[in-house]
Amino acid sequence: MKIEIIRHSLAHILAAAVKELYPGTEFGMGPAIENGFYYDFNLKNSLSPDDLPGIEKKMKEIMSRNETFKKKIISQEEAEEIFKKQPFKLELIEENLTGGNSGPISAYQCNDFIDLCKGPHLKSTKEIDVNSFKLTKIAGAYWKGSEKNPMLTRIYGLAFETEKELKDHLKLREEAGKRDHRLLGKKLDLFCFSDIVGPGLPMYTPKGTILIEELKKKIETICKEYGFKKVITPHLAKIDLYKLSGHADKFKDELFHVTSEKKHKFVMKPVQCPHQTQIYASQIRSYRDLPIRYMESEKQYRAEKPGEIGGLNRVYAITVEDGHSFCRVSQVKDEIKQMVEIIEKFYSALGLWGNHKVYLSFRDYQHPEKYIGEKKDWDECEKILKQVCQEMKLNAQIQEGEAALYGPKIDFMFEDALGKEIQIPTVQIDFATPKRFNLFYISESGKKIPPVMVHRAVLGSYERFLALLIEHYAGAFPFWLAPEQIWLVPIAEKHEKYAKQISQELSAAGFRTELKNGNETVSKKIREGEMQKIPYLLVVGDKEMKAKSVRVRERGKGDIGEIKINKFIKNRAEDIKFTSSAKVKKRI
Amino acid sequence: MKIEIIRHSLAHILAAAVKELYPGTEFGMGPAIENGFYYDFNLKNSLSPDDLPGIEKKMKEIMSRNETFKKKIISQEEAEEIFKKQPFKLELIEENLTGGNSGPISAYQCNDFIDLCKGPHLKSTKEIDVNSFKLTKIAGAYWKGSEKNPMLTRIYGLAFETEKELKDHLKLREEAGKRDHRLLGKKLDLFCFSDIVGPGLPMYTPKGTILIEELKKKIETICKEYGFKKVITPHLAKIDLYKLSGHADKFKDELFHVTSEKKHKFVMKPVQCPHQTQIYASQIRSYRDLPIRYMESEKQYRAEKPGEIGGLNRVYAITVEDGHSFCRVSQVKDEIKQMVEIIEKFYSALGLWGNHKVYLSFRDYQHPEKYIGEKKDWDECEKILKQVCQEMKLNAQIQEGEAALYGPKIDFMFEDALGKEIQIPTVQIDFATPKRFNLFYISESGKKIPPVMVHRAVLGSYERFLALLIEHYAGAFPFWLAPEQIWLVPIAEKHEKYAKQISQELSAAGFRTELKNGNETVSKKIREGEMQKIPYLLVVGDKEMKAKSVRVRERGKGDIGEIKINKFIKNRAEDIKFTSSAKVKKRI
Repeated sequence: MKIEIIRHSLAHILAAAVKELYPGTEFGMGPAIENGFYYDFNLKNSLSPDDLPGIEKKMKEIMSRNETFKKKIISQEEAEEIFKKQPFKLELIEENLTGGNSGPISAYQCNDFIDLCKGPHLKSTKEIDVNSFKLTKIAGAYWKGSEKNPMLTRIYGLAFETEKELKDHLKLREEAGKRDHRLLGKKLDLFCFSDIVGPGLPMYTPKGTILIEELKKKIETICKEYGFKKVITPHLAKIDLYKLSGHADKFKDELFHVTSEKKHKFVMKPVQCPHQTQIYASQIRSYRDLPIRYMESEKQYRAEKPGEIGGLNRVYAITVEDGHSFCRVSQVKDEIKQMVEIIEKFYSALGLWGNHKVYLSFRDYQHPEKYIGEKKDWDECEKILKQVCQEMKLNAQIQEGEAALYGPKIDFMFEDALGKEIQIPTVQIDFATPKRFNLFYISESGKKIPPVMVHRAVLGSYERFLALLIEHYAGAFPFWLAPEQIWLVPIAEKHEKYAKQISQELSAAGFRTELKNGNETVSKKIREGEMQKIPYLLVVGDKEMKAKSVRVRERGKGDIGEIKINKFIKNRAEDIKFTSSAKVKKRI
Repeated sequence: MKIEIIRHSLAHILAAAVKELYPGTEFGMGPAIENGFYYDFNLKNSLSPDDLPGIEKKMKEIMSRNETFKKKIISQEEAEEIFKKQPFKLELIEENLTGGNSGPISAYQCNDFIDLCKGPHLKSTKEIDVNSFKLTKIAGAYWKGSEKNPMLTRIYGLAFETEKELKDHLKLREEAGKRDHRLLGKKLDLFCFSDIVGPGLPMYTPKGTILIEELKKKIETICKEYGFKKVITPHLAKIDLYKLSGHADKFKDELFHVTSEKKHKFVMKPVQCPHQTQIYASQIRSYRDLPIRYMESEKQYRAEKPGEIGGLNRVYAITVEDGHSFCRVSQVKDEIKQMVEIIEKFYSALGLWGNHKVYLSFRDYQHPEKYIGEKKDWDECEKILKQVCQEMKLNAQIQEGEAALYGPKIDFMFEDALGKEIQIPTVQIDFATPKRFNLFYISESGKKIPPVMVHRAVLGSYERFLALLIEHYAGAFPFWLAPEQIWLVPIAEKHEKYAKQISQELSAAGFRTELKNGNETVSKKIREGEMQKIPYLLVVGDKEMKAKSVRVRERGKGDIGEIKINKFIKNRAEDIKFTSSAKVKKRI
C-alpha cells in the first residue's frame, strides 16, 4: 500500500533529520505503524517534546531538497564497514549472518543517511505532502522490546497521504481524548485506583458497580432464556489444573503464583474454563442431561507487564464473562447458533449491533504445533463454524492463525473511539479440553463419550468493555444502564416534601433516583446534572405540585415540558422494555 | 463445674486403662473438652477403633474398683524421678522450671497411674456413672499442636453426668450426621470439590449458586433500603495496605502471598475493609455526604492450616458479606441501630430471629496491647454500644476480651445443629482505621475531620452460613430460597404440552420451575422430588388439563388437593411477599 511506503520513508527522513541535528546518535529501527511511523534512537542527550518542532522543520527541509531513496546491495563486509560506529546496526548484521543469510544485504540511502532496509521506498522525498505528517510524542522503548536491552528514545509521528486526512485524524484523537475513559471514569466517579492497593487493580465505586451489575444482569437474563445456569468458582487452583488444560504453558509468565508460610502452593486462575470442567465432572452425566450450559462473571488474574498497565484496558484483575456448553457433537451447531443469537441480542440492546465485522479465526496451517487437539477434530470444527456463518448470513471473513489454543472460533469485531478494531464476543468449539479432563457422558447404549465444549464470551472482560462503552457514549449511558437515571430538583425548600414523595414513587417503580435538596441554585443543580450526563432532570415547583406533575429536562434536549408523574413513569418503563426486548430474527 | 471435673477425671482413668493394657506407652496430655475429654498417647503399636470397647471395659473395671484420686505435692527432683521414662512429661517439668516456677509440683494419682495435674478431681472413680461415658474415636494429633513435634494418638470420649444425657447427645449427633452439609451438599448437588483444583476451594453448582445469589439479593435489598451502596474491589493488594491497617500483623501466617516471574508482589485480601477505605479516599468528602455506606459480597482468602480444611466450614476461599458506614461521631448511634434492624430483618426472613443470644464483645482490659486505637476512643465506643443494646432491649451480655482488633462490637450468636454457638452477624465501631488511612471529611467550618467507620456483617461468610442453613433446614429450604421451587410432573406423554405451558407461566411469574418429562413413572418422579426436598410437586393429567389446574403435593404434607393454576401462582407470590417483608418494630 502506498501509505505504508510513505510512512516508512518518513521514518528514514526522521532518522536523516536526527542525524543532521544530533551528530553521534546511534540508530535502532524505524518501521511504519498504524496511522504513522516511529524511529528508535540512542541519543547523547535527552530530548523533550519541545524539540519535536525543530526536528519536523529539519525533515521538511530534507523533503523540499528532493532527496532520492537509493537502494544499495552491499556485502557483509561493506555493511560492517559502513555501520562500524552503529552498534545496533552491527547487531542486526550479525543476526543476519547467524540466521544463515551470508549473502548481500539490502540498504537504502537518503540524504547522507544510510540504513539497513529491505524497502520499498518512494523514489524521492518530494512525493510526500509536507503538511500530511506530524511528530507527536517521545517515549522510552527497550531495544527489541526486551527489558534486558538498553532503553532507547522513540519518536512517534502520524502520517497520511493528504493534509486533510491528517487533520481529520487529529480531530478524532482530540474527541477521543475528551472521551478517554480514565478522565471520564474519574469525573463521573465510576472507578478508582489507589497507590497503596497497587496499579492494575481497579476498584468500582457505587456508580461503576451499577454499570457492571446492570451489564451482568442483562447478559444473565438473556443467557438464562437460552438455558445457561450460573456457577461460582474460586480464584485459585493447583497448577496441575492448568498443566492438564494447557494453560500453564500458554500463560507461563503471566501466571500469578500463590504461596503461604504454611507451604500452600496455588496459582490464580488466568481463565475460567478448567474450573467449570470440574463442576461438570462432579456428577455422572447422561446423554439426557446434555447440553449442560454454565456461565460465570468472575475475576481472573494475569501478571501483565507492569509497564503496560493502564486505565481499564490493561489490568491485573480482569472480570470475565464466560460461558460454556457441554454438548453432543450433533448439538454443536445449534448451540453455536444460539450463542450468536445471544450476542446479537446483547449488542442490539446497546445499540452496537450492525457496527461490527465477523471473523472466522482458523488455525495457522503452517504451525499445527501451536495448538492442542487432533487434526480431524479441527477439520470438523472449522467445517461446522463455516456452515453456521453461511446459514446465519454473518458475512464472515476467514483469518488464518487466529484460532484459540484448543479450537477455531467466530470473533466479532467492534471499533473503539479511535477507530481501532477490538475483538469482544467470541464463540469457540473445543473437542480437546473435555478429552484432557476425561469428561464423559453416558450414551443411549451405556458408553462413556466425551462431550464437546463450546466456549462463548459475550463481552469479554468487563474492564475493557467498560472502557469501550464509556468512550463510545462519552459517559452518556443509555437510560437502562445509567448509574443515576433521574435527578429530582425542587425549586425551593417548600417543594422538597413533594420532591421526596415523587422520588419515592420513582424508586418504587425501580428507577435509580437522586433527590437534590440543598442550598445551591436550581440552575447550578441543572448544570451539575448535565455535566454528570443524567438522562432526566425533573424540576418541581408550585405549578408541578398542584398538577401532580414534573417539568422534564432530557439529556441532550433540554427542557421538553411538563408531564404527569404517572405518565412519566409509564414512558420510562416502556423505554426499558423496548431495549430489553431487542428484536432478533428467530433463525433456529 | 462438676461435669468438667468428671470429664477430666475420665481422662485420667482412660490413661490409667491404657497404661494397664499397653505397657511402655508414653503419655502426653489429657484435658476435659466440650461434651467430653481426650488423652494423647505415644503407643508402641497403633490402635484401631476396634480397640476402643476393650479400653472402655478396662476403664469401667478401674471405676468399679473405687479408686481414689490422690493429690500429691512433689519437688522438681521427685517429679523428674517419677517421670524419668516419660519424655513428654519431662518436657513439661522442664518448662515449668524455665517458666520460673521452681517450687513444688502438683500431681494426681489414680490406680497406679500418676500424672502432672493441677486438678481438681473427684474423690473416687465411684462417683462417675459407668454408663454416662463413651469412647468415640481415635485421631492423630501433633504434640502441643505443632507440626514440628511428633504425632501422637489421641483417644476421644464423650461424657455427661447421666446416662440419659449421653443418649440424648448421641441421638443429636446421629441427627446432625444425617443433616451434615457435606453429605447433603453432594446429595442435593449444591457444591463440589475437585482434587485437581485443590481442597478448601469449593465450587458452586447451578443450584448452590442460586442459594448464594438469593441470600445476596435478600441482604442487598434490605441494605439498599438503609442507604448501603454496593462496591467491587479486587482480591489483591500490596502488603502495604495491610501493614497500614494492622491486618498484616494480625493475619501474618494466614496471608497468601502472590508473586510472578515479572517480580510482582501482592497479597490476597484477608478482609474487605482496607480496600473500601480507598474508595472513600478517592474523592474529597464533605460533611453533607455522610454517612457513606458501602457493601460488598466478595471472596477473600486465608491460608488456613491444611489439616483443618473441611466441608464449607473451613475453606481457603471465603465469600464474605461485608458493609461499612463512614459517618460522623454524632451519627454512630443511629447507624448502629439501623444495622441491628438490618440483621433482625434478614434473620426474621429465615425464621431464625429469636433463636439467638447477643454479646457485647469488649476489650481485654488486662491486655490493651492486643488492640489498635486510643483508650478514650475505646471508652466512647463501648459506651455507645452499651446504650444501643439498652435502648433496643437486646438483652446483651458483656464478654471481655472478645473485641475486634480496632474496636468493640455487638455479636449475635446462633446455634448449629449440634447445639454449638456460632457467631455470625456483628456490628463494630472503629475510630482507628480511618485515622490510620488518613481518611477525612470537610466539616461545616472547613476542617478535615476523620470519620468513624462502623463495620457490619449480616451473615459473615457465605460458606459457613450455607453449612449452617443446610444443616438447620436439613436441605428443606424455605420456598423463596429453594434452588428448585416447583417441579411439574405430567402423568402421561399427552399431558406434556399442558405441563410445558404451565411451567412457562410459572417461570414468567418468577418461580424456578423444572419440567419433569421422561419415561420414569409418576411415583418415581415424586419420590425423587421428595428426596430432593422440592417445595411443590405439581402433577397434571386429564382432569387438571380440562380445569386449567394442578394437583399439588406440598413438601412435608403430601397431596393437598387440586387448585387452579392462577390461584396457585397468587398464593406463592404472597408467600414470598410475606417472608420478604418480615415485620420489624420501627425503633428509630
